[in-house]
Amino acid sequence: MPFSEPDLAPLLDTLARSAAERDKEDGHAAAQKQALADAGLLGLSIPERFGGDELPWSRLLQVVRTVARDDSALAHLLAFHHLQVATLLIYGTQEQQARWLEPTVRLRQWWGNAVNPRDERLRAIASPEGYRLEGEKRYCSGTLGSACMTVSARDADGAIVLGVVATAQHGITVREDWDAIGQRQTDSGSHFDAVRLARADVLRAPDTPPSVRHTVRTCLGQLILVNLYAGLAEGALAEARSLMAEGGIPTDAAVRAPLLGRLGDGHVRAVTATVMADRAGAQFDVLWQAGEAVVPQHRAEAAVAIAEAKVVAHRASLHLGEALFDIGGARATRGALGLDRFWRNARTHTLHDPLDQKLAALGRWSLEGEFPPGFYQ
Amino acid sequence: MPFSEPDLAPLLDTLARSAAERDKEDGHAAAQKQALADAGLLGLSIPERFGGDELPWSRLLQVVRTVARDDSALAHLLAFHHLQVATLLIYGTQEQQARWLEPTVRLRQWWGNAVNPRDERLRAIASPEGYRLEGEKRYCSGTLGSACMTVSARDADGAIVLGVVATAQHGITVREDWDAIGQRQTDSGSHFDAVRLARADVLRAPDTPPSVRHTVRTCLGQLILVNLYAGLAEGALAEARSLMAEGGIPTDAAVRAPLLGRLGDGHVRAVTATVMADRAGAQFDVLWQAGEAVVPQHRAEAAVAIAEAKVVAHRASLHLGEALFDIGGARATRGALGLDRFWRNARTHTLHDPLDQKLAALGRWSLEGEFPPGFYQ
Amino acid sequence: MPFSEPDLAPLLDTLARSAAERDKEDGHAAAQKQALADAGLLGLSIPERFGGDELPWSRLLQVVRTVARDDSALAHLLAFHHLQVATLLIYGTQEQQARWLEPTVRLRQWWGNAVNPRDERLRAIASPEGYRLEGEKRYCSGTLGSACMTVSARDADGAIVLGVVATAQHGITVREDWDAIGQRQTDSGSHFDAVRLARADVLRAPDTPPSVRHTVRTCLGQLILVNLYAGLAEGALAEARSLMAEGGIPTDAAVRAPLLGRLGDGHVRAVTATVMADRAGAQFDVLWQAGEAVVPQHRAEAAVAIAEAKVVAHRASLHLGEALFDIGGARATRGALGLDRFWRNARTHTLHDPLDQKLAALGRWSLEGEFPPGFYQ
Amino acid sequence: MPFSEPDLAPLLDTLARSAAERDKEDGHAAAQKQALADAGLLGLSIPERFGGDELPWSRLLQVVRTVARDDSALAHLLAFHHLQVATLLIYGTQEQQARWLEPTVRLRQWWGNAVNPRDERLRAIASPEGYRLEGEKRYCSGTLGSACMTVSARDADGAIVLGVVATAQHGITVREDWDAIGQRQTDSGSHFDAVRLARADVLRAPDTPPSVRHTVRTCLGQLILVNLYAGLAEGALAEARSLMAEGGIPTDAAVRAPLLGRLGDGHVRAVTATVMADRAGAQFDVLWQAGEAVVPQHRAEAAVAIAEAKVVAHRASLHLGEALFDIGGARATRGALGLDRFWRNARTHTLHDPLDQKLAALGRWSLEGEFPPGFYQ
Repeated sequence: MPFSEPDLAPLLDTLARSAAERDKEDGHAAAQKQALADAGLLGLSIPERFGGDELPWSRLLQVVRTVARDDSALAHLLAFHHLQVATLLIYGTQEQQARWLEPTVRLRQWWGNAVNPRDERLRAIASPEGYRLEGEKRYCSGTLGSACMTVSARDADGAIVLGVVATAQHGITVREDWDAIGQRQTDSGSHFDAVRLARADVLRAPDTPPSVRHTVRTCLGQLILVNLYAGLAEGALAEARSLMAEGGIPTDAAVRAPLLGRLGDGHVRAVTATVMADRAGAQFDVLWQAGEAVVPQHRAEAAVAIAEAKVVAHRASLHLGEALFDIGGARATRGALGLDRFWRNARTHTLHDPLDQKLAALGRWSLEGEFPPGFYQ
Repeated sequence: MPFSEPDLAPLLDTLARSAAERDKEDGHAAAQKQALADAGLLGLSIPERFGGDELPWSRLLQVVRTVARDDSALAHLLAFHHLQVATLLIYGTQEQQARWLEPTVRLRQWWGNAVNPRDERLRAIASPEGYRLEGEKRYCSGTLGSACMTVSARDADGAIVLGVVATAQHGITVREDWDAIGQRQTDSGSHFDAVRLARADVLRAPDTPPSVRHTVRTCLGQLILVNLYAGLAEGALAEARSLMAEGGIPTDAAVRAPLLGRLGDGHVRAVTATVMADRAGAQFDVLWQAGEAVVPQHRAEAAVAIAEAKVVAHRASLHLGEALFDIGGARATRGALGLDRFWRNARTHTLHDPLDQKLAALGRWSLEGEFPPGFYQ
Repeated sequence: MPFSEPDLAPLLDTLARSAAERDKEDGHAAAQKQALADAGLLGLSIPERFGGDELPWSRLLQVVRTVARDDSALAHLLAFHHLQVATLLIYGTQEQQARWLEPTVRLRQWWGNAVNPRDERLRAIASPEGYRLEGEKRYCSGTLGSACMTVSARDADGAIVLGVVATAQHGITVREDWDAIGQRQTDSGSHFDAVRLARADVLRAPDTPPSVRHTVRTCLGQLILVNLYAGLAEGALAEARSLMAEGGIPTDAAVRAPLLGRLGDGHVRAVTATVMADRAGAQFDVLWQAGEAVVPQHRAEAAVAIAEAKVVAHRASLHLGEALFDIGGARATRGALGLDRFWRNARTHTLHDPLDQKLAALGRWSLEGEFPPGFYQ
Repeated sequence: MPFSEPDLAPLLDTLARSAAERDKEDGHAAAQKQALADAGLLGLSIPERFGGDELPWSRLLQVVRTVARDDSALAHLLAFHHLQVATLLIYGTQEQQARWLEPTVRLRQWWGNAVNPRDERLRAIASPEGYRLEGEKRYCSGTLGSACMTVSARDADGAIVLGVVATAQHGITVREDWDAIGQRQTDSGSHFDAVRLARADVLRAPDTPPSVRHTVRTCLGQLILVNLYAGLAEGALAEARSLMAEGGIPTDAAVRAPLLGRLGDGHVRAVTATVMADRAGAQFDVLWQAGEAVVPQHRAEAAVAIAEAKVVAHRASLHLGEALFDIGGARATRGALGLDRFWRNARTHTLHDPLDQKLAALGRWSLEGEFPPGFYQ
């Protein structure tokens, strides 16, 4: 049975109804994650040869965006699950892909990660069987409750080792220590105590030469953020619209006109964010399909399209998180509705990398066609 | 010993340290309210002849603003206490003022209120002794823990009766049912069950003719909001500054320059809000001092200055509640800091009356010199 | 030889070099209009069966946008020429289309218009041969120097008569009386003194029933504005970039970083405007191709996409017209460069219909799916 | 007869009526400058002991602002005249002040300047009588038609020599070569060919030690810009209001409400700019009155208040230059009205020093209390 977005409606409705409550309680959304798995969402990115749906990334990210309208934290976990799948597809051998991804589809299992490259504390110590992992990693979104995870560590020379381990493996402790004003129920650090990384599960050895294809993963990570932001904007707009309809549209034209104007303005911002996200998604699909044949110029152009979309979606998510209250009126502030979560989620997530640096990178591109640099581009 | 703002530093420090925690716990800030009372802040607006400090309102509102930097919910309670004092000074006889305000100073007692004029459910039924109050009133900020309160009700003809009752009086139930995304620990509704309002405590009888002087109370209510917003802007700016200093100012000029620019921009917005608030405060002082001699034109001009300041402070509070994260960086999102409360408090409070209506009223004034209408102006 | 946009480069270069001068001199750009005709741009929208290129409208409007980067006034004339062609394709019979459009291609002739529907002064008085036109019409962009024109007038009952006349016909006086702060060299009113409109040249008789297909013309008119605005944004950005490169990019990172940020921000706005314009263009192509089979829902959806793009492009054109000076620095203000023309052109043209009304119409659509009303949507 | 601002009304009316025309013609506003002189405006800043009005600077700058509403170019000349007077009061001896300022009052003469410190091409070659001036100076606003001027030049060691010369002196050529998109009729460069600067007219010798008092001149220069910007904002608002009244205020509330909102918003921005300008003016008065006793901390605080006001007025002038068209509608674009001059004047003048640098300097002040650096602060 092929994947169909409309079929998700009941699931999304369930998520939406509990989102405000779960945002307050924090903790782990085990039941909701199970529901996403049961709905067959964990195999969407996995190639058909391993039993998955092999959706184009642009299409998959629209699903992520749809989930983000109602719950951007769960959407983040879903997207990061697929980012780890992408990691295997980029770095793994056919054998590794088959061995790890077939169970993902068959058993509807979640992927976690411990790959945050900015945190260099995790050590990969060479051992007869491969490596022994020792240390800490923060920002391991979605690792709690996962079956397996990607992990990056530094060897004795500081070079990066990338591999896959089962989350239940002896020596791994996943913590529920995410504590932020937004994107609750997402993240936690992991501790590794003499964890075995078998040679067969190493995706990237320290001496693997860098390739353009590898950097495509960063583009996907950024594109995920774009769609989370765009989904937040759409979700906030939908709440504003509901509140306005629920509260009764004012009959006095002098009151109604500015409200409709604010709604129209919010509508344009949310639509623009999704249009830019879809355009970047289409460019990413081409990049992905090029496989190893990808060239730096095309990678750079896709990265620019993603960055452009990110600026637009970043602003739209913050704007609508605030404007929903102007449109919805004082009733929007009722604690039980918890509608501040849209702004809190947007505000937390849009600090991932500073807007000013993104704009300056785009300025350099515009001025000189300079390729966007580094990790976040 | 005359009032001195610098002496408040230890008190404010205590409030600041518990603000994030209390924002999360909700509930009633009994200890903190007692500390404000102990610091002598409840008599600041009360005339010297009743033992108070008789500060000019502009000066008193600067104190409110200072408190709002650290805790805008408590600042709201403090300001509304003084708004009830103003109600007695505007409507009460000398005898009533003496009888009710002397204990306020002497016993350091809080005032509550049940005067929200938009809620017409409370009935004043004529009785041999005066009135019997029956019904409900919502938005009774700060009434919990108060010694006495002002109350407005409608008589059989729908005319307004305004009076004073002791909060502990038989038949009054104050509820702790404020539930909003911001300005926690402030509000609650009140229920009145056969509550006696003695003739001697009626401030405004149904047949009292309207006067310009009476409308000065509305100006004060608006000016309080201006100063709460301005204080929120200043408080958020101070947090941004601390975070930037704490996190280490980036050494890379390409990173530092835009951050300093955002800080400078936030600084200008916060300063502008306070300058406009003080200007409006000075005009209000003149209005207040005119007493019964106040003329509509002067009332209108002060109301315009207050509305101008309100627009500026409204925007500054929302802007800084959001920008503090851009300036402070990802570390600003740590849950324990609870720094989203600035935005939540600003967002909740700035919905008091819609910005678009305020701007249109100012537009009419600008175009035709039309006096700002109605309750919220 | 098929049309190729890159081949336009020399022509555009010529236009760009004289744009500042012609903006100052006002008057009629006869030579430049001839150059556009010589470049084969007047047949782009005309069906192949009449000898034209039959470009999709989305593609043609990209050409208009390209011209608008260098000269938005000439781009306006070019677009309005094609709008009159569209008028014939919508309202005319095959015979009328062949008779009027074949010479347009063969002789490379310009179309003018006198159809502004808001100006009801022009009368169509029934005569034995058809109608006699009497009166005035303002806003007849591009009619000077045209070979023929569309014209709308009111009959004795106030119903609209639409037809085609040769511009050189006896009784027609075209005035060069456009006088505005922007979009110079475009417009003029026309006077009709006993002008004969033959029955064979009536496109729309007073009793023609309204049809959805007819309203597609309005969509095209709006989409033209979108592309003019987007072209202005791109043109201003290009000037900013040139000035920045010409002036030497500052070596001090504290100065360079904010400038690059402003450039990047402008880049995102201009790109977003073009992306939204192209999306609306693609929807319009589908609408156009549906011909008489077009249904109201699809017309409404295309109109919404066009309105969304118009809001984005409107704002981008004004923003970049101003920001080009922040990016380019004081040298951008040199009178000889005349770079204020981007802002003046954008400011003049974006007043065509008020943004606030457009936003409110989009708000109604967002809230209730209400079809956008009336002429300007 | 003491100076009275209301008496200026007829003069301002005359200026306003010719402003659009003179903006187009460029050239030198000899008649208008004479009218300003005749109205007694050239002695406003000059001490009473020399026959002047000795207005406080804050008061004088309000006059400048009033003139700027109708003609910001002439207001610039008027303000720069008084800046040269200030230069004499700061650097000159009592004897020099008397000798040069008494005729200014008595003969109602204009001052010009050739002191732009960024242009180091003018040389001061020591001579038996003092110095011989050789070279060029650009940005000599208002020097054409002046009786005398201040001039700065570099001696053989690159040190600054500041002095006064009569404009008519042999060897001085004043050019009418200002050519920019705004602030027409203001500026021109000067050429010096063996011009004699007598020892008695040297205000600052190369070995004069720097003093805080000297830097007060820079503050005044910045404060002048603040008031020109604020005047532009007020003037544009007044035009918007007139257009709205002239065009008939729409009766449809759905159209009227957003327009009134935009007018109210513009009103708040213009008022805020003037409030901030007056606050900075009051601080400057104190600084000025301190004379030689001025201390760096007070100088810094005044400079900060001026910078804060400058940011606000800068933005208000640009905003209103654009918004006047939204408020006034399409009729505002009529060429004869020339209302684009507000935006062009604001846009040209606000590039004097980049906003981003100003904001960053304020950010440093906010963060660390660092004194604003250099020339433009």
